Amino acid sequence: MAVSSLPPSPALLTDKYELTMLAAALRDGAAHRRVTFEVFARRLPEGRRYGVVAGTARVVDALAQFTFDDAALASVADFCDPATLDYLANYRFRGDVDGYPEGELYFPGSPVLSVRGTFGECVVLETLVLSILNHDTAIASAAARMVSAAQGRPLIEMGSRRTHEQAAVAAARAAYLAGFAGSSNLEAQRVYGVPALGTSAHAFTLLHTTADGPDEKAAFRAQVDALGVDTTLLVDTYDITTGVANAIEVAGTELGAVRIDSGDLGVLARQVREQLDRLGAHRTRIVVSGDLDEFAIAALRAEPVDSYGVGTSLVTGSGAPTAGMVYKLVEVDGIPVQKRSTHKESHGGRKQALRLVKSTGTIVEEVVYPYGAPPPDPGHLQSRPLTVPLVRAGEPVGDLSLEAARKRVADGLRSLPWDGLKLSRGEPAIPTRMIPVER
Amino acid sequence: MAVSSLPPSPALLTDKYELTMLAAALRDGAAHRRVTFEVFARRLPEGRRYGVVAGTARVVDALAQFTFDDAALASVADFCDPATLDYLANYRFRGDVDGYPEGELYFPGSPVLSVRGTFGECVVLETLVLSILNHDTAIASAAARMVSAAQGRPLIEMGSRRTHEQAAVAAARAAYLAGFAGSSNLEAQRVYGVPALGTSAHAFTLLHTTADGPDEKAAFRAQVDALGVDTTLLVDTYDITTGVANAIEVAGTELGAVRIDSGDLGVLARQVREQLDRLGAHRTRIVVSGDLDEFAIAALRAEPVDSYGVGTSLVTGSGAPTAGMVYKLVEVDGIPVQKRSTHKESHGGRKQALRLVKSTGTIVEEVVYPYGAPPPDPGHLQSRPLTVPLVRAGEPVGDLSLEAARKRVADGLRSLPWDGLKLSRGEPAIPTRMIPVER
Repeated sequence: MAVSSLPPSPALLTDKYELTMLAAALRDGAAHRRVTFEVFARRLPEGRRYGVVAGTARVVDALAQFTFDDAALASVADFCDPATLDYLANYRFRGDVDGYPEGELYFPGSPVLSVRGTFGECVVLETLVLSILNHDTAIASAAARMVSAAQGRPLIEMGSRRTHEQAAVAAARAAYLAGFAGSSNLEAQRVYGVPALGTSAHAFTLLHTTADGPDEKAAFRAQVDALGVDTTLLVDTYDITTGVANAIEVAGTELGAVRIDSGDLGVLARQVREQLDRLGAHRTRIVVSGDLDEFAIAALRAEPVDSYGVGTSLVTGSGAPTAGMVYKLVEVDGIPVQKRSTHKESHGGRKQALRLVKSTGTIVEEVVYPYGAPPPDPGHLQSRPLTVPLVRAGEPVGDLSLEAARKRVADGLRSLPWDGLKLSRGEPAIPTRMIPVER
Repeated sequence: MAVSSLPPSPALLTDKYELTMLAAALRDGAAHRRVTFEVFARRLPEGRRYGVVAGTARVVDALAQFTFDDAALASVADFCDPATLDYLANYRFRGDVDGYPEGELYFPGSPVLSVRGTFGECVVLETLVLSILNHDTAIASAAARMVSAAQGRPLIEMGSRRTHEQAAVAAARAAYLAGFAGSSNLEAQRVYGVPALGTSAHAFTLLHTTADGPDEKAAFRAQVDALGVDTTLLVDTYDITTGVANAIEVAGTELGAVRIDSGDLGVLARQVREQLDRLGAHRTRIVVSGDLDEFAIAALRAEPVDSYGVGTSLVTGSGAPTAGMVYKLVEVDGIPVQKRSTHKESHGGRKQALRLVKSTGTIVEEVVYPYGAPPPDPGHLQSRPLTVPLVRAGEPVGDLSLEAARKRVADGLRSLPWDGLKLSRGEPAIPTRMIPVER
């Protein structure tokens, strides 16, 4: 088995109805009409004040790989007619994509992505585009709240085991994008360069049990021998006070860090800090982990915690495991279209967006307006365009680097009004003004 | 790009600390000790009365692929010493695995999987085993509640777009395993044979818009021409009553089905049923979709709904997106071990399990007892062993077919006491009795 840097083609990560629609549209010729599909979220997850766009670079990467080889064609041959199979065999996305760059904040109605081309070439991308954006955005949005709650203390993503094995890799990437220091996930390091972190688990201490009973010091000694004194020793397998004493006895006062993974983390962090200082290990850091979310992280602000390990809540989006974005047809041959049924707001026509900003840098309003129309007058405010070109004629354009996205999140968090950073449930930090197409 | 039936090696879908523990354990020789790791959930997701084990077959498949090639070794070379790299280069799991067969019910403390071998060969599997089981089990457990709520009406999984693109494939498989009729996901059909379902979306109707305005009938005609009258027409893009009339006008009274994707589904289903009957389309079925979960499915029991499409709530585990299973070292060279810190119950020693069953088939109690000890006396009840061999010396054994797992879920749901099928929050349907190791 090769570890390929190229995953299998994503062409079948697709809902069947996209291909049946394609078949019907090829038959009556509508497949060749020029269209715009738009990705947006009707609302933020309940009580959230902002979201962070993530996954854009993964979408752009996937476009180039989205082709149907013989095996893929064979697997859809039972319901696709020859004309459809022929179309798919030659399929390659050659359209244009615009959207919010990865790491940008978004709000309800923000036109996060706009995909343009023929109906046939755009319709088959719906599922893949949404899967990537809904997942990665959900994780990055939760991660940004944790980063903001940690107020500069480093966060380590360690939730791989609590989510699908491949989702884990994307989650590690999204967490890093949002400002985490790194992840436990090795594949995320290999594929995306996310710093890999972590040293040992309870199993390693338990392994050093003999007929005479547990031997925590033997475990610590083995770890320090292999990884050096700058390692992080896990001190809560048995008794924490004894664990800390054993750790310093074995590693000396230059020990890098101790980790506490259970119990009342605030109380324990204080006790352990006092004990470490008493033992002369003033520079030994304290890492805490164990069911942390943004609220628990914030609650530990006053405690002598040096970094946080976050697992389940990160990879499950801290209560909002999907961003709920949709991929909607908004324009056909230049004609704005929209669904007219009840309760689902939709706005026809291709759009672009800008954000109004005070001279202090604080954001005030999201403005979504028809593509090609003059941007609205910002008055006394500054106006920052949000929509950028991402793909032209099927080829990626623009800076899709993870580091650039990471910087955008940091800038975005700084730009929020003070209320917007509150962890409590509330309204979106800024309103969105939708300027409709003139008909 | 080839669509490979073999995904890249899963060896790096692993937390860094597993390899640093391996390095330290190789150095002091502990890596060669014989150990048992056990997978179990300390509790069910809050309020759930049972869980459904899923992912077991995916775990077994992954074991055979879990090898480190040159690219994988290169990516960990910066923190692994030569002895560790050499160990990984020759790594292949040759141990044994026992556990609950896929599709079996589980309860708090159920020893869902037991992995045995040297510490070195077992420790590196932790993340991958947990990622697969935690994800697939969360989805199957939610899906089983929906299947039970639907009382025999078919359910279609259509949530791919609301979760990571590869998680979507596993979610489709888990839903089918739990009793769904099929999924929209094409890759799940190709890889696992899950029936692929689905016909069209609002975009297809909107596409048939011209300068003269929308033309729903043109869209329906194109779909029927391409897919035949047995297709499902989506009737709520504009006005539902007009949509139904257009559908029957175009397709005739032999139309397969209509789908309603928005609005008050119960009210609309009744109206649409009456309208279809009035038009003579007595055999045209009604499919409903749109933010359905097990509660909404149950609430529609009295309505003339023929099948349900379920998306977001399925792929996010309906409020419980991860099963919370852990992978714990329970035995080293025959010595039971366990963490002693507060609040986390753990039970040392290799275990097996049986379920006590009344003569009516209703289950009464889960009994977890030390491996090798005589099974407890069932008294007047019957006793059904739960632990089966899954892997011997690295090779799969036993029936890992999806159809067998599907049958197990159906049997399991029938075996629950009446209370256990309630959707409301409650305690586990049966208690778990843990018989400790005699020391």
